[in-house]
Amino acid sequence: MGRWEPGARERLVVAAVDLFNEQGYDATTVAQIAERAGVTKSTFFRHFPDKRELLVAGQETLSRLLTEGIAEAPEDAGPLTAVTAGLLRAAGMMGPVNRRLAPRLRAAVAASTELQERDALKSVSLGAAMTDALIARGVPDPTAAVASELGALAFKRGFARWSEGDQEGKDDLGALILTALDELRAASASLT
Amino acid sequence: MGRWEPGARERLVVAAVDLFNEQGYDATTVAQIAERAGVTKSTFFRHFPDKRELLVAGQETLSRLLTEGIAEAPEDAGPLTAVTAGLLRAAGMMGPVNRRLAPRLRAAVAASTELQERDALKSVSLGAAMTDALIARGVPDPTAAVASELGALAFKRGFARWSEGDQEGKDDLGALILTALDELRAASASLT
Repeated sequence: MGRWEPGARERLVVAAVDLFNEQGYDATTVAQIAERAGVTKSTFFRHFPDKRELLVAGQETLSRLLTEGIAEAPEDAGPLTAVTAGLLRAAGMMGPVNRRLAPRLRAAVAASTELQERDALKSVSLGAAMTDALIARGVPDPTAAVASELGALAFKRGFARWSEGDQEGKDDLGALILTALDELRAASASLT
Repeated sequence: MGRWEPGARERLVVAAVDLFNEQGYDATTVAQIAERAGVTKSTFFRHFPDKRELLVAGQETLSRLLTEGIAEAPEDAGPLTAVTAGLLRAAGMMGPVNRRLAPRLRAAVAASTELQERDALKSVSLGAAMTDALIARGVPDPTAAVASELGALAFKRGFARWSEGDQEGKDDLGALILTALDELRAASASLT
């Protein structure tokens, strides 16, 4: 088996999510995941430090794309416009595998407190990273915090709608996230 | 040593936070915490299931007070008024020990990924509980989500200011939380 195996990373994630659903997170070993994916254990460890990181590895990329999108938005863009740029960049990384995998991934996380905790920390870190990226643009602190919370909620809600089914008109993740952001903005305006 | 030991719970929390700071979370055992607090191990286990829960046990009470305050707000109160009622009720549970302990507690959490994850999940659950309490009042979903995010941010920021020092005019946690909520509301209005 060669060192370079195209698709190994993706196959490992799919195999892990399936095994977590079939037999539980705790009972699943790295060896079983590698076997199901048709790769060696050392291939597993070239991609992930352990089975827990496997499920949240995508969030590092997500965080990077969100903050890069915010940082590189036009200089005169307001906070929510910069957040929108980050959200659209992050949406671009999500493909058919992410969409198909999402319901089983949610089920696996819901069944394991350990995974829920890991997931919650990643989600809190993601909000903090967006807030920092806005502050680096000169957005004042409380505004940056609110804008990044609205952005995080919009991504979560748009992604949930996108991955909950193949309904007509729900194929464009970016559009669903922007709709969610508009709803949240209107809700926020009604509050203040 | 009698079964009823006044202050044992509080002494256990103080002892644990001290030990976590002195020697790290991983290296600290339940036996050491009990010894430092001057109680038996079985007293420890009457109060907490394990050393990890000890640090977040207060968040259960916090969540209950927040949601009760929201649920029992006057029927005609708007979403942010109901959230304010919850925040003030929760602020009432915080005493001098919470304030004194907060910086060391933060340091202990910052030094342990396991505690950070536990803390993040509790914080996410707290937001979800507030959102549910608002929805139960008839607040529509996106508005409930935004109002509870603003409330959670206000609590966090008010609590941080309160516990960061004994500055003049920073003794009233409730007032600090309301000031933070006003700032967040203004920031939110500037965005939308």
